[in-house]
Amino acid sequence: MNGLLTDLYELTMAAGFFEASKTNYKATFEFSLRRLPANRNFIIAAGLPEVVDYLLNLSFNEDEIEYLRSLPQFRTVSSGFFEYLRTFRFTGDLFAVPEGTPVFAGEPILSIRAPVIEAQIPETYILSAITFPSLIATKAARCVEAARGRSVVEFGTRRAHTPQAGVIGARASYIGGCNGTSNALAGFQYGMPVMGTAAHSWVMSFPREAEAFRLMQRTLGEYTVQLIDTYNTLEGARVAAQLGKPLRGVRIDSGDLLATSRQVRQVLDDAGMHETQIMASGDLDEYRIRDLVDAGAPIDSFGVGTQLAVSADAPALSAIYKLVELDFGGIHRFTAKFSEDKETLPGSKQIFRDVARDVVARSGECGRGEALLRPIIIDGHLVEPLPSLEQARCRAASSLDRLPASLRKFEAAEEPWPVIYSRELKTLAEHTRLNMSQ
Amino acid sequence: MNGLLTDLYELTMAAGFFEASKTNYKATFEFSLRRLPANRNFIIAAGLPEVVDYLLNLSFNEDEIEYLRSLPQFRTVSSGFFEYLRTFRFTGDLFAVPEGTPVFAGEPILSIRAPVIEAQIPETYILSAITFPSLIATKAARCVEAARGRSVVEFGTRRAHTPQAGVIGARASYIGGCNGTSNALAGFQYGMPVMGTAAHSWVMSFPREAEAFRLMQRTLGEYTVQLIDTYNTLEGARVAAQLGKPLRGVRIDSGDLLATSRQVRQVLDDAGMHETQIMASGDLDEYRIRDLVDAGAPIDSFGVGTQLAVSADAPALSAIYKLVELDFGGIHRFTAKFSEDKETLPGSKQIFRDVARDVVARSGECGRGEALLRPIIIDGHLVEPLPSLEQARCRAASSLDRLPASLRKFEAAEEPWPVIYSRELKTLAEHTRLNMSQ
Repeated sequence: MNGLLTDLYELTMAAGFFEASKTNYKATFEFSLRRLPANRNFIIAAGLPEVVDYLLNLSFNEDEIEYLRSLPQFRTVSSGFFEYLRTFRFTGDLFAVPEGTPVFAGEPILSIRAPVIEAQIPETYILSAITFPSLIATKAARCVEAARGRSVVEFGTRRAHTPQAGVIGARASYIGGCNGTSNALAGFQYGMPVMGTAAHSWVMSFPREAEAFRLMQRTLGEYTVQLIDTYNTLEGARVAAQLGKPLRGVRIDSGDLLATSRQVRQVLDDAGMHETQIMASGDLDEYRIRDLVDAGAPIDSFGVGTQLAVSADAPALSAIYKLVELDFGGIHRFTAKFSEDKETLPGSKQIFRDVARDVVARSGECGRGEALLRPIIIDGHLVEPLPSLEQARCRAASSLDRLPASLRKFEAAEEPWPVIYSRELKTLAEHTRLNMSQ
Repeated sequence: MNGLLTDLYELTMAAGFFEASKTNYKATFEFSLRRLPANRNFIIAAGLPEVVDYLLNLSFNEDEIEYLRSLPQFRTVSSGFFEYLRTFRFTGDLFAVPEGTPVFAGEPILSIRAPVIEAQIPETYILSAITFPSLIATKAARCVEAARGRSVVEFGTRRAHTPQAGVIGARASYIGGCNGTSNALAGFQYGMPVMGTAAHSWVMSFPREAEAFRLMQRTLGEYTVQLIDTYNTLEGARVAAQLGKPLRGVRIDSGDLLATSRQVRQVLDDAGMHETQIMASGDLDEYRIRDLVDAGAPIDSFGVGTQLAVSADAPALSAIYKLVELDFGGIHRFTAKFSEDKETLPGSKQIFRDVARDVVARSGECGRGEALLRPIIIDGHLVEPLPSLEQARCRAASSLDRLPASLRKFEAAEEPWPVIYSRELKTLAEHTRLNMSQ
């Protein structure tokens, strides 16, 4: 399953390693971020369950193997390689930081140690499976920070890059602190809260707004939230208020949200509907939420769609998955890349998170603080069940609380979180460079 | 299948329509783009196969129905609704412009006519399933235009929003004119060309670059493309050239691509390797490709990853799916939305594409030029097989050829493609507005 869901070059390299009789080489690859996107001071790690599921089920079926055999690139590859793929499984080790952990550039947040082909093939899948939910969890955390205690709900499946990505994104946004999602499948699959009541089409389906509102109230009872801006927002608010309780909330999806929310609050209060909440949606992001909250807009809940679903101002992460160490017949070789602007550090590593900095050390070193990379899969088997979604969400919230306030701002901080390399690691890097230039 | 892969509000509205005894109302919804993203003068429509597959298989299984029943929002909904979901199928009609068609803002590019619940539930899925591949096909077309005959290959799965989205994106990039993809599963599923040979880890796995290159050549023969920038690009080029033929190409993935490609070309030519091609990759997009081509860089093929895989400068489309017409017991009602900045036009429509403009007319009208909206599904059944991927790709290429050159530029054109509304349509809109404000 999923064997072909990778870049072809992972598979041509696999053939190359096989043909070179190097299938028993043990390789260590590390996943890290080259740099953080503009205006980001941390990234919330997410997506580990997809990586685990992928590694535990990675295989090739007959049709997939036949397909590879038919490609011109594999024309001269020996049939032994295709036999090898038939029983191919991931038998190695996976280490990773737990979901919900804030991470920074230049530190390994996931590593794989496995026979070289098994470690190489997952590169493409892992890069995508980690970066996307991490971007969404991060964007969500920013929106939640901006809302200062008001509710933030993820509304973005319709903008996600495939509906299925919307489900993964909804989960990630919950890790980042959103209170729920509009995505019903995410609720079903992950047990997270789901929200949403009606679209404009509901109101437009009836000759009069009042009839649409009355029927919604009859269907949803105390969960009724009326969408009031189909024709005229204030008139919509009056119609909703006149129908009386139950009316959990009204939603505004257009116009000047500050001015309109104030007028709508007045209409509701005048009708004695003090408990009825105001939800706002429509092109919101952390900056617009911050401005609305700063201006004192009487909005109780923000529905965030497009900007959150694709992390619109930072839709990709500069993540890499690099070979750092090779082990064959008892001989270790450390590897690094020295091309322009794209250097990497050799050797397998650990991150120690202390009160006010991270130290990246060689994996055998001792360090102060929490060792962030934990064993997830050993010898192809899951070590223990992954933390629950709620645990990941709590970890994100408590970790963010401990970050300096300057890093939780919405622009790049003057002083980023310090990521320091241990002396042993720097020495190894220097030796490796000297070795390779000989 | 997939019944829950939608926003919850589609399902609460479904319950509302059911409780209001309106399941037999026929509704027409239209999908359109409110506006084009910055720097875009067209969007290449793509994603129709996913929509068709979704509609033909849309259903709810027992577990999904039990989940809905357990939600507080559905607490007072009658059990008849859950019975209704048990046999729920899409029995309506789908009309859409063929894949590969350039489309513009303010025109319906897909429409659904079906019993109101069947037309409402697909909203979320359809919006995502069309916008994402359309964005990627468009971005690909821009890169291909910039490359002026040189090859463009899609390399972006690792940056896609989930690996599975990478497969959909690879297909869309082929519609947009890319010559192939790095995604092996896309090759397997869609029969499109796949490309790629080695990553830096391949080179780093061997003590000497020459050994890595020799083994790659032995494995891939005439398909060998050596990645030459792991340590020092020019040295890498010399090592590759010294090994001699076969050497289809060398790839450069870092540094100043203009200067480096010239130096590498010199090294190759000096070694008599005139047929060996140069591939470039690394943070490319249509603008960088244009600049490299304008400067005469001797690059034969561009590998485009991040910027293409997420359409980084325009990662979302402002697409809407709006109710335009309701039909119950022989009575037609036309619907539109008049909220601030978010108006829509009533009634089901057709687009007529003439030589130099589109006319959007009421669906019964005659018009000059090609009628773009075609029947795809009627009464829940596929009318005929969809055009092949190759046909969609050809349609995109020939349609783009016919567009004015100013629209194929990489910035917003001074004169966008004219989208004109027929007199009948404008009259209907005016009547609808007057009717609703009574």
